[in-house]
Amino acid sequence: MKSPLAHTLCFALATLLHTMPVYAGPTVILLIGDGMDEQQLTIARNYLHGASGRLAVDALPVRSSVQVLTVAEKDPKRSIYVADSANSATAMATGNITSRGRIATSAGTDRDLETIVSIAHRAGLRTGLVTTSSVTDATPASFATHISHRSCEDPTRMQSYEVAGDFVVDCSQDLQSHGGPGSIAEQLARSPLDLILGGGRGHFEAAIDSQESPLAIAARNGFDVFSSPAELVAGEGVNRRIGLFAERHLPVRWHGEQGRIAEKPQPSLLNYAYRYFGSVKQPQAFQCEDNPNYGDTPSLKAMTDTALDQLHNDRGFFLMVESASIDKRSHQRDPCGQIGEVAQLMEALQSALAYAEKNPETLVLVTADHGQAAQLVPDESIFAAYGVPIFTPGNIARLQTPEGSIMAINYATNQFDVEEHTGVQVPLFANDVAAGKIPPLLFQHEIFGLMRDHLGI
Amino acid sequence: MKSPLAHTLCFALATLLHTMPVYAGPTVILLIGDGMDEQQLTIARNYLHGASGRLAVDALPVRSSVQVLTVAEKDPKRSIYVADSANSATAMATGNITSRGRIATSAGTDRDLETIVSIAHRAGLRTGLVTTSSVTDATPASFATHISHRSCEDPTRMQSYEVAGDFVVDCSQDLQSHGGPGSIAEQLARSPLDLILGGGRGHFEAAIDSQESPLAIAARNGFDVFSSPAELVAGEGVNRRIGLFAERHLPVRWHGEQGRIAEKPQPSLLNYAYRYFGSVKQPQAFQCEDNPNYGDTPSLKAMTDTALDQLHNDRGFFLMVESASIDKRSHQRDPCGQIGEVAQLMEALQSALAYAEKNPETLVLVTADHGQAAQLVPDESIFAAYGVPIFTPGNIARLQTPEGSIMAINYATNQFDVEEHTGVQVPLFANDVAAGKIPPLLFQHEIFGLMRDHLGI
Repeated sequence: MKSPLAHTLCFALATLLHTMPVYAGPTVILLIGDGMDEQQLTIARNYLHGASGRLAVDALPVRSSVQVLTVAEKDPKRSIYVADSANSATAMATGNITSRGRIATSAGTDRDLETIVSIAHRAGLRTGLVTTSSVTDATPASFATHISHRSCEDPTRMQSYEVAGDFVVDCSQDLQSHGGPGSIAEQLARSPLDLILGGGRGHFEAAIDSQESPLAIAARNGFDVFSSPAELVAGEGVNRRIGLFAERHLPVRWHGEQGRIAEKPQPSLLNYAYRYFGSVKQPQAFQCEDNPNYGDTPSLKAMTDTALDQLHNDRGFFLMVESASIDKRSHQRDPCGQIGEVAQLMEALQSALAYAEKNPETLVLVTADHGQAAQLVPDESIFAAYGVPIFTPGNIARLQTPEGSIMAINYATNQFDVEEHTGVQVPLFANDVAAGKIPPLLFQHEIFGLMRDHLGI
Repeated sequence: MKSPLAHTLCFALATLLHTMPVYAGPTVILLIGDGMDEQQLTIARNYLHGASGRLAVDALPVRSSVQVLTVAEKDPKRSIYVADSANSATAMATGNITSRGRIATSAGTDRDLETIVSIAHRAGLRTGLVTTSSVTDATPASFATHISHRSCEDPTRMQSYEVAGDFVVDCSQDLQSHGGPGSIAEQLARSPLDLILGGGRGHFEAAIDSQESPLAIAARNGFDVFSSPAELVAGEGVNRRIGLFAERHLPVRWHGEQGRIAEKPQPSLLNYAYRYFGSVKQPQAFQCEDNPNYGDTPSLKAMTDTALDQLHNDRGFFLMVESASIDKRSHQRDPCGQIGEVAQLMEALQSALAYAEKNPETLVLVTADHGQAAQLVPDESIFAAYGVPIFTPGNIARLQTPEGSIMAINYATNQFDVEEHTGVQVPLFANDVAAGKIPPLLFQHEIFGLMRDHLGI
């Protein structure tokens, strides 16, 4: 029997151990701004903080640039100079260069490529994915699933799924009924991830005939699946969780006044006769405002905070956080949408940095997957002195910035409904944990090695 | 009288001192790629070295990003989000933010702003400017002259000079006959610079009536003025020199096959009826080739080598080296022109780095002054699956790259004869001398302070 003193001392020691903070082991938080190239950063900085202001990311001590590599599906030795989110996320998640549309599979040969999530899990680390898109979208999918095409998001989209026009995707070789791993949602539901947060409830509810839905598979696999933002609370214990807060992608925070996006300038009739004649009416300037459809959607920061609480442990973890709709709104020529989503990433970054402050083995990386169409152009042409009508052949938005000026954003990569990506090299930022370890230019697939080395796995 | 032994020793010592290398004191070599934003770098890398290759600048250990600030002439508190080369070079040369078109003078008040060249000279350092444009062009001019408008390049352009359409520039307040410092060429001719190399002979020969030409002023001011590339030889001694190798700007190294630049896609007639109908004919791909008009034009590297030889001394020096036509060819939608001029800057950089290797107090900086229009876009639209005609509303060039692929470059900031600049933040690179001294984001006018601090002046 213990003496009363020993008992008291034991109790004190146990209490102390319980209240002592647990420092995380080697941890990686990878924040991806989808389409967040240098243009997007400058546009967001000017609007959010003024031209002389600074974004949260500007405070990071390490800045590098990332050359994005893509290859042709039919000839994987041939360079394709513009990526999509599938092949670029695959590069970061697996260290491999592949073709557009592919989710952690190899160009031409459709071989599964092991992901950082899988390797981290095997090494005993917790893993999580957080995004503002459907969790089945290309970026998160590439970190934990393998399939030949990004469109095969749920069981109803695996076979003869018409993506567009005459383009029919066939992932039937991956069907569960053919002995395959199933769609992206099914693979996520069966994944070893500890936490998945974002949109895409519809994809998890989709099922063919009497087969199990991804939701049912997830529950059987030990996930608590929830969809109410109220359940997005910290300290829920260690149960594995999937939080899905929208049918598809989460709504974005901001939109333009009256939903306005970039518009076409209106040249006068005379200008149609000859381009030096007549005049042009530029679109009216507008401001950004709250998107009325945002509702009680959790912010990227709120989801990131929850993830950091849940994944925190003394072994360390891998967490990917994506602000997905910088890209999606830029495709739609919606500068306010894109600026609000850059702001979301900056807030999530502040949470990541606060975490790293307390857990000094935490590597925080911020990058983009590829470039986007938006260009900051002169509101008054630099050739205005010529006195002739000068205007974009595409669409332009004139934003009234809070600091009292007009910022003109041009979208003119095509005349289609949605803009193209660009092939520009993209920024990479890191906290001081990476000082001296990141060269000034690296290739996108080398980010995988950086993360793996830091995690020691 | 000296003994024979003392005489021999003295002679040996004198010989030794004469042949011992002189290490330069604190030195700054600032290389500016005009318009050389991240898009330009990626495009040049892909063409010159392949997507997996590296530019010389990629090897520099320090990489940062520069927010370019511009203000309105009539309201210098108001941000203008897109710069020109005059106000951006003024920022670097003087540490001041000004309005577009101004050469080292203040927005609104037309006050002269002291330049790094002037401060360096006063401190006893040698100074030089090297460019592929006319030496009177905005970038070099901002480092050593002061005038209200960049167009006032020579005595014939000071008063009622019609730049374009109804835009008439008036620098008459700066006329020598009004007690002013005269045009840019006159000011350069009277400047304390040790070396000026580039184009612009025509501006130096221009004179009004019986007044002295800038050429005559330069000779009277102690400059050797020459125009033959054969005279561009090293070790010419310490005479101050002006080398002018073209009437205006130097010709560029490369052009497209048959002089081709970006062209308009040709939609079929049916496509004019409705944009989802019909088809589109994209321009044929082409390669880059030597510009037949280049002749015996000295390369930027050759001029830089000469400058390094001439400026080298134990006190240190300031040298600005500009590849000017990256911007000029991008305005003209000429991707081959621009790529060849990025290559020129990379070669000049290699000379600067070799110099820094031997002279360890040499700070080498590489940056751009502002963004340009060119965008690397998908050769096959990322929405090609829709099976409808998708093409740029602007102009596109499809380059056949040496590594065997097609790189598509889009120019679509306006429908005018020349493209706009963009307001994107631009890259800054430095050698290891700057390690730990350059924050990951800085404002363009802070480059002045960096250079001044390094020179200790």
